[in-house]
Amino acid sequence: MNIDGKAWRTIGVEPHGEAIWVIDQTLLPHQFQLRLLSDLAQVAEAIRTMVVRGAPLIGVSGAYGLMLALQQDPSDAALAQAFDTLLATRPTAVNLRWALERVRDLVLALPEAQRAAAARQEADAIADQDVAMCEAIGDHGLRLFQQLEAARPSERREQPFQVLTHCNAGWLATVDWGTALAPIYKAHRAGMAIHVWVDETRPRNQGASLTAFELAREGVPHTVIVDNAGGHLMQRGQVDAVIVGTDRTSRNGDVCNKIGTYLKALAAHDNGVPFYVALPASTIDWTISDGLAEIPIEARSAREVTHIQGRLASSTATGAIGSTANIDSVQLTPDGSDGFNPAFDVTPARLVTALITERGVAAASEQGLLSLYQST
Amino acid sequence: MNIDGKAWRTIGVEPHGEAIWVIDQTLLPHQFQLRLLSDLAQVAEAIRTMVVRGAPLIGVSGAYGLMLALQQDPSDAALAQAFDTLLATRPTAVNLRWALERVRDLVLALPEAQRAAAARQEADAIADQDVAMCEAIGDHGLRLFQQLEAARPSERREQPFQVLTHCNAGWLATVDWGTALAPIYKAHRAGMAIHVWVDETRPRNQGASLTAFELAREGVPHTVIVDNAGGHLMQRGQVDAVIVGTDRTSRNGDVCNKIGTYLKALAAHDNGVPFYVALPASTIDWTISDGLAEIPIEARSAREVTHIQGRLASSTATGAIGSTANIDSVQLTPDGSDGFNPAFDVTPARLVTALITERGVAAASEQGLLSLYQST
Repeated sequence: MNIDGKAWRTIGVEPHGEAIWVIDQTLLPHQFQLRLLSDLAQVAEAIRTMVVRGAPLIGVSGAYGLMLALQQDPSDAALAQAFDTLLATRPTAVNLRWALERVRDLVLALPEAQRAAAARQEADAIADQDVAMCEAIGDHGLRLFQQLEAARPSERREQPFQVLTHCNAGWLATVDWGTALAPIYKAHRAGMAIHVWVDETRPRNQGASLTAFELAREGVPHTVIVDNAGGHLMQRGQVDAVIVGTDRTSRNGDVCNKIGTYLKALAAHDNGVPFYVALPASTIDWTISDGLAEIPIEARSAREVTHIQGRLASSTATGAIGSTANIDSVQLTPDGSDGFNPAFDVTPARLVTALITERGVAAASEQGLLSLYQST
Repeated sequence: MNIDGKAWRTIGVEPHGEAIWVIDQTLLPHQFQLRLLSDLAQVAEAIRTMVVRGAPLIGVSGAYGLMLALQQDPSDAALAQAFDTLLATRPTAVNLRWALERVRDLVLALPEAQRAAAARQEADAIADQDVAMCEAIGDHGLRLFQQLEAARPSERREQPFQVLTHCNAGWLATVDWGTALAPIYKAHRAGMAIHVWVDETRPRNQGASLTAFELAREGVPHTVIVDNAGGHLMQRGQVDAVIVGTDRTSRNGDVCNKIGTYLKALAAHDNGVPFYVALPASTIDWTISDGLAEIPIEARSAREVTHIQGRLASSTATGAIGSTANIDSVQLTPDGSDGFNPAFDVTPARLVTALITERGVAAASEQGLLSLYQST
């Protein structure tokens, strides 16, 4: 996607092939800065501290992490250790395991001397396929939006098509296009009048910081709201569709996504607003048939609840691309009040209107998923 | 309630009778500071900027505002102007109108020379009655909690009784005791093992700042969570009851409360968790029979969404009572991304398990309310 007219991806390999670059997402939207990662430890740290985040991008980052590890030590033992180190960085997303297994299984069959180069090729392929999958999700979602728009009651047609999204499932969460935001970018580029309600998505505010940044830089009309406001907007007929991403989708169609997704799904259901989940096949966990009971939920640091980061309002920095913004944290709670920070929740399939995948649109059910992926 | 062992109210009259003091709630939890208000304009400004907030406290503050106005000019014209000025400060809460009308209607029948003193007496009475009503709500709610606790399945009895609350409907929102928190204080003082999940309540974070402050100072076990987390906790059986306050209750039992209340009510309903609303009679608007359609929702400044206030994490101030904390705001959104900030939403009566009032517990319906207030 574009940043002020220039096309970007979120991750790439340096020309000499011995380091990767990523956009440091912990500094957005106030500062745009690339970060070089040149070994396994740096990649693992970048995933753990959410310099890179978003299920698909975590998977691609992990694949490149294996490449960097193999450049230093291509042995089976080093590979196994690198695999475990990377897998432990984030327990909920399933793309990470998928990407790591894909690279590991490929290189294990090769002589040590060929492993690093093969890992590079495979990681590149995962990245390129992620872009293609996201673009296909965008095309399928666009058709859905067009159908919904055409079916809107006449009194609503004077306002833009209103989409609410939670967290960031945009191009910053993937390599390009995004999952939930791909249909929005497609619709905007196709000339549809579209407006996005952006949930700020506490505690890490990926909506207010990353989704708003993406939409602003691409020029898509949007408004940031607190996570509490979406239900009210749906009650008032201000939302035509909700679309979110997913970190893990169970075979029965339950969706594990950023904490708070479930609440928006309940509100959509209560108000007859369609609720869509956009996903590439790599987020489907065919081994799990009851998402609510079986998906482990990562609990992150309570400090993400008790504190929040932003740009000091008293700062004179402009926040323009490349500027050095005055970023600091403020404490929100009294000393001595603790926080609890579950990072994800599970939205039961019954609340999901449809899944939008790179292969098309399906019901959120085992039957629906099998209708698209029977051959896998 | 207590602050570190010393009993406080939220508002009072200075000894000389020509000014009132309030706790400046915009500085909590980082700094505890009283503010003197000595004329109508200062009271109106304090309500508008949320130095005082919470439906019952706004009502009492308004009553004292009329007292101060009448001290300067007891004429009918000045009274009418003071009434309008105060009423315009917050459009959603109904206690404000109720308290203002109560004082105005009383003094209008009196000679000008007696008006200020009569207003003082009436405002004092409103404050004292608010305390008595809140304590009664606490007693009724305590009995409800005791019944729920006794009926818990045995596997849950090893953990404390878990209550989730949204925003601040504690003693800081009233004169003392609070509405939704009154049963919690009563339960804690009665020796019940109780733990409170405190929704931070963006955008103004009254949960993280005020409710957490109250509970910490009174010594009630609690944990702050982001507004997104409550549904997940209910899915996991970690919430025995939800209890919130209300700014306006329609005669059919719809509840207008802080934005996001509706989402928690949906989650409670979906998980079979009882959802209670605590209120004094002064929040009931008998003129409105469809809360969703008829209650005006205040839209506040977008800056409350795009920015947030806290204590600078790099500050060395301790935040202890009386200290001068280094309070600042940070910007959360990119420059150029706008926000929208509806302050309240309406929870339909069908999602409310029961209303807890100073007269007892009733169904959230016209019949339920009339069963308690038929005589009014």
